[in-house]
Amino acid sequence: MKETYVACEPGKTKVSPEIAALVENRKPGHALDAPFYISPEVFEADMKLIYGQHWIYVAVESEIPEPGDYITVDIHRNSVVVVRDDDNAIKAFHNVCRHRGSRLCNEHKGSVGNIVCPYHQWTYDLEGKLLFAEHMGDDFDRSRNGLKSVHLQNLGGLLFICLADSPPADFDEFKAAMEPYILPHQISKTKVAAQIDIVEECNWKLTIENNRECYHCAANHPELTASIFEYGFGYQASPSNQAMLESYDQLVLERSKDWEGGYGLPSIEIEHLDGRITGFRTQRLPLDQHGESETLDAKIASKKLLGDFTRADLGALSLWTQPNSWHHFMSDHIVTFQVFPLSAERTMVRTTWLVHQDAVEGVDYNLDNLTAVWNATNNQDRHLVEISQKGIHSDAYVPGTYSPYTEIYVEKFCRWYIERLTALINA
Amino acid sequence: MKETYVACEPGKTKVSPEIAALVENRKPGHALDAPFYISPEVFEADMKLIYGQHWIYVAVESEIPEPGDYITVDIHRNSVVVVRDDDNAIKAFHNVCRHRGSRLCNEHKGSVGNIVCPYHQWTYDLEGKLLFAEHMGDDFDRSRNGLKSVHLQNLGGLLFICLADSPPADFDEFKAAMEPYILPHQISKTKVAAQIDIVEECNWKLTIENNRECYHCAANHPELTASIFEYGFGYQASPSNQAMLESYDQLVLERSKDWEGGYGLPSIEIEHLDGRITGFRTQRLPLDQHGESETLDAKIASKKLLGDFTRADLGALSLWTQPNSWHHFMSDHIVTFQVFPLSAERTMVRTTWLVHQDAVEGVDYNLDNLTAVWNATNNQDRHLVEISQKGIHSDAYVPGTYSPYTEIYVEKFCRWYIERLTALINA
Amino acid sequence: MKETYVACEPGKTKVSPEIAALVENRKPGHALDAPFYISPEVFEADMKLIYGQHWIYVAVESEIPEPGDYITVDIHRNSVVVVRDDDNAIKAFHNVCRHRGSRLCNEHKGSVGNIVCPYHQWTYDLEGKLLFAEHMGDDFDRSRNGLKSVHLQNLGGLLFICLADSPPADFDEFKAAMEPYILPHQISKTKVAAQIDIVEECNWKLTIENNRECYHCAANHPELTASIFEYGFGYQASPSNQAMLESYDQLVLERSKDWEGGYGLPSIEIEHLDGRITGFRTQRLPLDQHGESETLDAKIASKKLLGDFTRADLGALSLWTQPNSWHHFMSDHIVTFQVFPLSAERTMVRTTWLVHQDAVEGVDYNLDNLTAVWNATNNQDRHLVEISQKGIHSDAYVPGTYSPYTEIYVEKFCRWYIERLTALINA
Repeated sequence: MKETYVACEPGKTKVSPEIAALVENRKPGHALDAPFYISPEVFEADMKLIYGQHWIYVAVESEIPEPGDYITVDIHRNSVVVVRDDDNAIKAFHNVCRHRGSRLCNEHKGSVGNIVCPYHQWTYDLEGKLLFAEHMGDDFDRSRNGLKSVHLQNLGGLLFICLADSPPADFDEFKAAMEPYILPHQISKTKVAAQIDIVEECNWKLTIENNRECYHCAANHPELTASIFEYGFGYQASPSNQAMLESYDQLVLERSKDWEGGYGLPSIEIEHLDGRITGFRTQRLPLDQHGESETLDAKIASKKLLGDFTRADLGALSLWTQPNSWHHFMSDHIVTFQVFPLSAERTMVRTTWLVHQDAVEGVDYNLDNLTAVWNATNNQDRHLVEISQKGIHSDAYVPGTYSPYTEIYVEKFCRWYIERLTALINA
Repeated sequence: MKETYVACEPGKTKVSPEIAALVENRKPGHALDAPFYISPEVFEADMKLIYGQHWIYVAVESEIPEPGDYITVDIHRNSVVVVRDDDNAIKAFHNVCRHRGSRLCNEHKGSVGNIVCPYHQWTYDLEGKLLFAEHMGDDFDRSRNGLKSVHLQNLGGLLFICLADSPPADFDEFKAAMEPYILPHQISKTKVAAQIDIVEECNWKLTIENNRECYHCAANHPELTASIFEYGFGYQASPSNQAMLESYDQLVLERSKDWEGGYGLPSIEIEHLDGRITGFRTQRLPLDQHGESETLDAKIASKKLLGDFTRADLGALSLWTQPNSWHHFMSDHIVTFQVFPLSAERTMVRTTWLVHQDAVEGVDYNLDNLTAVWNATNNQDRHLVEISQKGIHSDAYVPGTYSPYTEIYVEKFCRWYIERLTALINA
Repeated sequence: MKETYVACEPGKTKVSPEIAALVENRKPGHALDAPFYISPEVFEADMKLIYGQHWIYVAVESEIPEPGDYITVDIHRNSVVVVRDDDNAIKAFHNVCRHRGSRLCNEHKGSVGNIVCPYHQWTYDLEGKLLFAEHMGDDFDRSRNGLKSVHLQNLGGLLFICLADSPPADFDEFKAAMEPYILPHQISKTKVAAQIDIVEECNWKLTIENNRECYHCAANHPELTASIFEYGFGYQASPSNQAMLESYDQLVLERSKDWEGGYGLPSIEIEHLDGRITGFRTQRLPLDQHGESETLDAKIASKKLLGDFTRADLGALSLWTQPNSWHHFMSDHIVTFQVFPLSAERTMVRTTWLVHQDAVEGVDYNLDNLTAVWNATNNQDRHLVEISQKGIHSDAYVPGTYSPYTEIYVEKFCRWYIERLTALINA
C-alpha cells in the first residue's frame, strides 16, 4: 500500500523517515534536493500536506455567473464541483456519489438544477443534500448521505478551496489585506475572454519557482519584457544592475504616490511569502512604455476599462499566493494562473483572461492581442521548466546556489514549502 | 521485488498485512474499499489468487473449428494457446518456448501443423511435445522440455482454463448442472459472426459489478431495455416497484412452465454466486415485446434458429460465472462475454456473437442488427465504470450502501470475491 | 525512496537481498531468471552497477569533426555532452547546469563556442570552466561551479565514457590489443553517412544476448546471411553442422593468413568476453560470396575504400564490447551499434554507418544500398527480442538451456554480467 506513511489528518500525518530527513536537511539558499522534484513519494506527501491542507486557488467567480452554473476542478485525484446555488452563494463539494463513488459531473463546466449521478440517478440539491435515491428502502438515512462539502473562500471574486477538515484560519487576514487592492478591479463584472490549459512535464514546484524570479526573463521572454520590468521580483542591487535598479525604485515610488494618493488605489508591496500559512505577496508595479497593460505594445488590450477606472495607466497589480497561483490585474484586463499538479513530473497550468463583461470581442478587444504575451511566455517557461526537470534526474545534479540578488522570492517559496512540511510532519 | 508477498501456490500464498486487513474488514452490504479498485498490489493479488486459481472463461469452441486452429488468450502476463489437435481434442498450453522464453504464437488466432518458435525454430506438436531443437546435443532431454500444459474444461462449447496446478474440483458439479441448459443451443454448430474487444479504464471488479445489477439500466440502456426486464437480477420488492415486480414474477412463472413443460427446456433459476469456488447463476428469462431476442425490436436477428429449435420465443438463457463471464443464449444467437484484466485500472471486455454455422450474413442475418444492442450497451457501461473508477480515487470516497432490493447480486459477487481471497490467504 | 538499496559508490554498493540472491543463484548455461529482464529494481541496479561503473561505448569521433561540435548522449537519466574543444581534444561533461540543474544542451548534436545554459545564461567554456554567472555576487566561487567532467577514452575513433569516479583501469589493455585491428580503418577520416535509432520493447540484456549468437540467423535474417556466416559466433561442431563448420574453419585459416601475412592486417580472434572488467572480443571474419562487405550482394557499398586500403575483400572485422556495443569494420564502410537502456523493458539501439569522408552520396555510395542489410536485420531482431520479452513475463517461464554449440557467447555475456554484479555487490 503506497499510502502507509502519508495520512490526511493532522496529528496522524506521517512521512517516511527518508522524506523527513530530506525536509530537515534542506540547505537554505539552495535549490531543493532531487527527490523533491522527482520522487512519487514526495509527490504524495505534497498532495496530502501542501495541496491537501492549504488554500488552493481554483477558479474565478465569473466562470460561474448564473445560479446552477458549475465547474469541476481536479486537485490531483480529488475532483471538486464548484457551483453557484439558487441564492447566488458559491459552494464546493466533492464530486463523488455517496452510493458507489461515481464521479457526478463529468464535464469541466455546465449548468444544472440538481446534481444527478449518471449511474443510478441519486439526486443531490445545490446544497449537497441527497433528495432522491431509489430502491434504498426505509432504513436508509438520506440525511447521512449528502455530498461532502469542501471549504471555499471568495476573495473579491477569486475562489479558493481547502480540502482539509480544518482549513488555515489566516485566510481572513489575507483577505482583509488584499480586498482593497483587488476590489477596484470588480471581478464580478468581468467575463472569461479566454482560458487555456497547458501541461508542463515537470514537478509543480519548478513551475512555481520559475514564476517567482525574473532572472531568466531578459534572455527568454521578449514579449513579456516589452512591458514588464524584471526588477519587480524583490531584486537587490548587484554590481551589474545597481544603476538601473535605482532608477526603477524611483519609478515605483513616483507611480505609487500617483496611484495611492491621486487615484486612491493601494499599491505598496505587502510581502508575506513565508512565515505564515497562507503565504502571499502583492504590489502594484509600473509597466514599461505607456505603462498600461501586459501586451506587445504595452497599451490596453480592451477598450472597456474594468470597474470604475477612468485611466489606463495603472500598471499591473501583482498577486502571488502559496502554493499555487499568480495574478496580474491591469486597468483593462486580468490574467490569472492556477497550477494543478498531475503527477510528480507533470503539471497543468491554467491561464484565464478576464475582460469587462460588456466588452465585445472584435470591437473592444482582439483575442490574439489580448493573449499574445502570456501565451508566448507560458510556452517559453514550459521549455525552461522541462529542461530543468530533465537535468535534475542526473546523478550529477547537486542543488545550486540561488542568487542573493534575483532569486530571493524563489528562496522564500522553498522556505515556505519546507516550513509547511515541517509543521505538518510534526503536528 | 514487487512480488515478495504474493506467491502462486496455495499453502505459500501470502499477501501483505495491509491487504489481509482490507479483506478481513470488508463491510457486508457495501461497496469495497478504494484499494480493491486502484491498488497495484491488490491487483497482483487478484491475478494470483482470483485469476490464477479459478476457472476462467476464455473462448468458445467455435472459434477453433478445425484441427490445428488455435487462439491465444492473455490472462494478464500469462499468454495461453488454446488449440484443437488432430483428434479434435482441445488443449491449452502456456505460450512460452522452453528455450529462451519467446512467445510462440504471436497472433490472436491462426492455424498450424506444429507450434514452431520464431526465434530458434524449436518445434512442438499439438500435444505440446518437443519434436525438434537443433544444436542442443545428445545430453539434452527433449522429453523434459515440452510445452507446459494448462487445465481446460469444455462446458457445452464454452472453454474454461485454470492456471493453477490443482484446479477447483467443483467444476464438475457446475458442468452437470449447466449442460441441460446449454446443450440444446448446440454451440458446436455455431460460428462466430462478430467479436469485438473494448478496453475500459477501470478495475475489472467494477466491470463485473456493473454486470450484476440492472438498477442502472432504465436511465442508461434504452437499446437493452427494449427487450430485457431489469427485474431478472434478483430484484426484491421495493416500495417503488412492487406491483411491476409481481407481474414480472407471474410472467416468469408462465413462461418457465411453457419452456420446461411444453418444450423440454430447463428454465428455473439456479443461483450459486457465492458459497462455492466455481460460483455461477443461470435462469431462462422472459424478454419483453415478442420475447424472442436481445435486438432493438426484440425479434430474432438470425432466421436460422440454433440447435433443433422450432420456435423463436425462448427468451434469453442467462449464465454468469465467477469471476469473469456472462452469457445470453437465445433461440437464434448467443452473446458471450469475457473480462480480462489488463492492469489495476484497465480491463478488456471481449464480446462474441454466435449464430448458426449455416446462417449466411446478409441473407439470414444482418451484422449491424445482430450487434446493435450490445455494442450500444457495452459503450454505455464503459462510461459508467470509468466515471466510477475516477470517483473512487477521491479521498472523499467511502464505500456506499448497496440497495437491498436491486444490488443483491453485486453484493454476492463481492462476497464471493472476499470469501475466495480469505480462503486462499489462509490456505 | 526507490533507491534505498542501490548506491553509486563502490564500497557502499548495495542491492536488496532478493537481487543479491538472484545473482548468487544464477544457473550457468541457462538463460537468466525473469526478474533480470523485467524487474525495475534490477534495472536500477543495472544502471548503477553495469552502466554506471563500466566503459560505455557512446559515439564515434567523426560525429564531432570540428572544434565546438558536440553530441549529447543519455545513459538512462544521465545526460552527457561529448564535445571537441578548440585544441581538438574530446571531452565529456555532465549535461547539467550547476545553478538549478537545467539541461544545458538540448539537441542531440550541434556546435557551440561556449556552453550556455538556456535558463539564466550561466556560461561554461569547453573545458567545463564556469566563465560567467550574473547576479551571483562576490562571495560566489565560480571555480567550484564548473561542469562535472566524465571520463572519456578514444580507441581509434570509438569513444567510450565511464560515469564512475574511478573507471576500470583495464581499458588500457583493451586499447593496446585493439588498436592494431582498428587503426587501419582510419575512423578519423570517415564521415557519418546515416544514423538510425530504433526502440525495442525489451530489456537491454535481451538485445545484447540476441547479438551474441547467430543460431537465429538462418531462419530470420535472409539479408544478413547473404554475406555473413553464422559460424563466426564461437560455434562448436554439433551433429548437424560439423561438415560445414570444418569447411568454414578452413576458410578462416586461409583468409587470416592472407590478411595478416600478405596484407599486414591483424585478423586472429581475441576473446575476453568474460573474466575481465572491460570484456571484449574481436576477429576479422570472412564473408560469403565476394567477401567484400555486408550488403545484399556482398560487394562494397562505397567505391571510396577506407584508410589506405587498396583491396575490397577484407571480410568484416568484428568487435564486441561488454556491456553495450558491437561493430563491423569492412574495407569500404563501418557499421557500429550502441545499446542504451531506457527502462526495464525499453531499449534504444543506435546504428551508425560510416564511409570515407571524401565519399559522395549518389556517386560513391547509395544510402539505401548501404543501410539495407542492417535496417532489415535490426527490424527482424527487434521482433525477436520483443516476443522474448513478452514470453518472459509468463509465470510459466523457466530459464532454458543455452545451446553448448551455438550460444557460447550468450553464456559468456551472462557470465560477465553476473561476475560484474557479484564483484560490485561485494566490493
